[in-house]
Amino acid sequence: MKKAVIIAGAGTHSGFSPALAEALLKTEREVFLLVRREETKHQLLTCFENRTKTPRCVVVDLLKERDTYQLLDSISEEFQIDVLVHNAARFKRAPFSELGLLDFEEIWRANVGTAIPASNYLAEKMAQNGGGSIIYSGATASVRGGANFSAFASAKFALRGLSQSLAREYGKRGVHVAHVLLDGIIWGDRAQNSFGIAQGRCIQPEELASAYLSLIGQPTSCWTQELDLRPAQENF
Amino acid sequence: MKKAVIIAGAGTHSGFSPALAEALLKTEREVFLLVRREETKHQLLTCFENRTKTPRCVVVDLLKERDTYQLLDSISEEFQIDVLVHNAARFKRAPFSELGLLDFEEIWRANVGTAIPASNYLAEKMAQNGGGSIIYSGATASVRGGANFSAFASAKFALRGLSQSLAREYGKRGVHVAHVLLDGIIWGDRAQNSFGIAQGRCIQPEELASAYLSLIGQPTSCWTQELDLRPAQENF
Amino acid sequence: MKKAVIIAGAGTHSGFSPALAEALLKTEREVFLLVRREETKHQLLTCFENRTKTPRCVVVDLLKERDTYQLLDSISEEFQIDVLVHNAARFKRAPFSELGLLDFEEIWRANVGTAIPASNYLAEKMAQNGGGSIIYSGATASVRGGANFSAFASAKFALRGLSQSLAREYGKRGVHVAHVLLDGIIWGDRAQNSFGIAQGRCIQPEELASAYLSLIGQPTSCWTQELDLRPAQENF
Amino acid sequence: MKKAVIIAGAGTHSGFSPALAEALLKTEREVFLLVRREETKHQLLTCFENRTKTPRCVVVDLLKERDTYQLLDSISEEFQIDVLVHNAARFKRAPFSELGLLDFEEIWRANVGTAIPASNYLAEKMAQNGGGSIIYSGATASVRGGANFSAFASAKFALRGLSQSLAREYGKRGVHVAHVLLDGIIWGDRAQNSFGIAQGRCIQPEELASAYLSLIGQPTSCWTQELDLRPAQENF
Repeated sequence: MKKAVIIAGAGTHSGFSPALAEALLKTEREVFLLVRREETKHQLLTCFENRTKTPRCVVVDLLKERDTYQLLDSISEEFQIDVLVHNAARFKRAPFSELGLLDFEEIWRANVGTAIPASNYLAEKMAQNGGGSIIYSGATASVRGGANFSAFASAKFALRGLSQSLAREYGKRGVHVAHVLLDGIIWGDRAQNSFGIAQGRCIQPEELASAYLSLIGQPTSCWTQELDLRPAQENF
Repeated sequence: MKKAVIIAGAGTHSGFSPALAEALLKTEREVFLLVRREETKHQLLTCFENRTKTPRCVVVDLLKERDTYQLLDSISEEFQIDVLVHNAARFKRAPFSELGLLDFEEIWRANVGTAIPASNYLAEKMAQNGGGSIIYSGATASVRGGANFSAFASAKFALRGLSQSLAREYGKRGVHVAHVLLDGIIWGDRAQNSFGIAQGRCIQPEELASAYLSLIGQPTSCWTQELDLRPAQENF
Repeated sequence: MKKAVIIAGAGTHSGFSPALAEALLKTEREVFLLVRREETKHQLLTCFENRTKTPRCVVVDLLKERDTYQLLDSISEEFQIDVLVHNAARFKRAPFSELGLLDFEEIWRANVGTAIPASNYLAEKMAQNGGGSIIYSGATASVRGGANFSAFASAKFALRGLSQSLAREYGKRGVHVAHVLLDGIIWGDRAQNSFGIAQGRCIQPEELASAYLSLIGQPTSCWTQELDLRPAQENF
Repeated sequence: MKKAVIIAGAGTHSGFSPALAEALLKTEREVFLLVRREETKHQLLTCFENRTKTPRCVVVDLLKERDTYQLLDSISEEFQIDVLVHNAARFKRAPFSELGLLDFEEIWRANVGTAIPASNYLAEKMAQNGGGSIIYSGATASVRGGANFSAFASAKFALRGLSQSLAREYGKRGVHVAHVLLDGIIWGDRAQNSFGIAQGRCIQPEELASAYLSLIGQPTSCWTQELDLRPAQENF
């Protein structure tokens, strides 16, 4: 059975999702990009026009357990999913006084909730298959709660706690659960337009994709649970 | 104006809430215990029968912003609330495979969501008043995601991230935000009946209350952001 | 037998040693300030002129095991030493390229080596006596290795590792080992003359002394292993 | 100029040094194994008999600055050293009561002191050459001070503090400084004979070598400062 990878929460803010998909296609896996909106799907597929290998892009609400399970069921009929990359994130920078409970819930759902159904389905599936990799994408805010980051940091801390628990729960069943601490900005549209940061000071999407690939390829005697990654020029 | 303290999420699993209330009553503050259920209110008030000083106990759903705000508004008419202790928690130990998105949300809401409305209201109020203390109660799971603790650790990590952010956001406005890492079990009904642990190996409620009081009393030149507390006999 | 406290590495850079001695004198303990130089001894004693209670000040090289042991032996004949505060420190800020192996050794010896003989003697003594407290004084550099802090951070990290090991080794024998993370500058001569920082942004010596006293006074059911302390105005 | 790598503190307790040398030889670098004793040199060279490519093995006392500098000077005449792996370590497990100041110094010198002269020489050299990698080998004891590990943990904490400082000091000058947290036992003679642990529960030397190679190969936009590595079967 051909192997497949799920990239849950693919986006176009940065060039990471297309770069990761491209890197994974080279491993002879089928690549599924799960996106929330039709528009994102079209933008992502545009990146792969005229390529020999292209990922599949599926619109699904990762917070809907039934939809997510049905999708993963149907993929599992044809493929053995051995990699899940959770990459869904919603950034939020705002004073605490401007945030209410609903904002906190929304940020939690976007950053953590989106990880639950797919992880639930795939962690067990991988354990039954004897192996697999699940990677969660963290940020500086995963380990440092800064001023004006109450909702975002709280959610990113939560995702890190989840990843640690699952690493300990599934490791001995062969599933490698890792958390990547992205301590920097990935080059792409948002870096350029919103943050106005130079490319040379950013994490390059293709190089980041290679780092994820290294994690996925780690043999069982040498697993990393938490990988920090930052540009040489980043203050930390 | 007389000062008041809010204990958000008072319970009877352990003897901590009554002990903390009693210790705070000695500081000449009015003490408000916010509880979720009528039954808990009665149990708590029973602890203070025939005492000279008694805390007030109010039933309120801390997840309801309007109710929480109205309650704090009415208390603020009479008192200057300068201390908030968030102590609401729901413990959960279960394999990830038995937990769905709804469980994660529920655990998040009980452990983190309950902190938002009251913190929102009081952090600003205290900053405007020039000072105050907000303490969140953490656990071993706040810094370590163990197997079968995915939902609980994730929520406790989130609360810790929130506390760090608020500490940095409100510290310079005079509000001391602290996080207590309780690395052990508080003596009380649950310790005795559910965990079957000896009293001598537990955190004593009265001594824990003193530790909270020390935090509240810290002068502005010597603030602790995170305080770990454990019995001498605890493995760590 | 009257109790006594040892302050190993008392100095006059800041007002902390006199303040701590004064606070401890109020606990009815005999207070011994161990200093490296005669000059420091005279400066420290000057602080206590015309006071009813004064600490004793002894010149000793804490790196000399025999001298340290003899001193502690002779004190132990009269007193039960139940508190050791290790406060010897040498600050060093320099580019790595300007530091050689000898510098690293010197900084290690001043910050860590000075803790070994006294800790060795007293940890066992306290364990045999059924209890006691040992406190090590850390800094921001104990948990963060900054540029130009290679020697200092390396030594402070080492002291933290020592304190954790001893906490786990002696805790169950009744000896409370704690590490204080001083994330800020203590008010005193050096703060004023070398760092040029305002008093209001500094840790106040008397308030810091109170925090140490709180640690020393913690009951066995509620021990803190690591206590961070910083002024409200400190960036962190 | 051909590139070269220095492995400072090569040993034969585990199979790591030969495996790392072999992996690095494939990158077309000249490989220098710096060992303390003639005997180790012969054992290491035996591993490479009848191989096409072999590392060079040099006996040097890494604590002697002059010797270390002269050696690196002479190597630098022929090669551009762009990688330093510090791997010298002395394990120590003993109750604190059995350790004196000299033991602490000795353990510090073996684990940390051995890193200073070579790092001093090469960090600057690499910065002047515009790039390079320095990797320090840590252990569980680098982040956790356990009972009976006072000397070892203290030294390993120190090495970690050094690595963090150098990472921040040299990163912007192009030198990638990383710290590897080996949370497990490397397969080899000691694992088999002293620890009696099964190969399947150990870190495999060849796979560990690959992880070091990945670190060395990281592009400047994606550097890891701290890499934890453990077998899937390890408790953590």
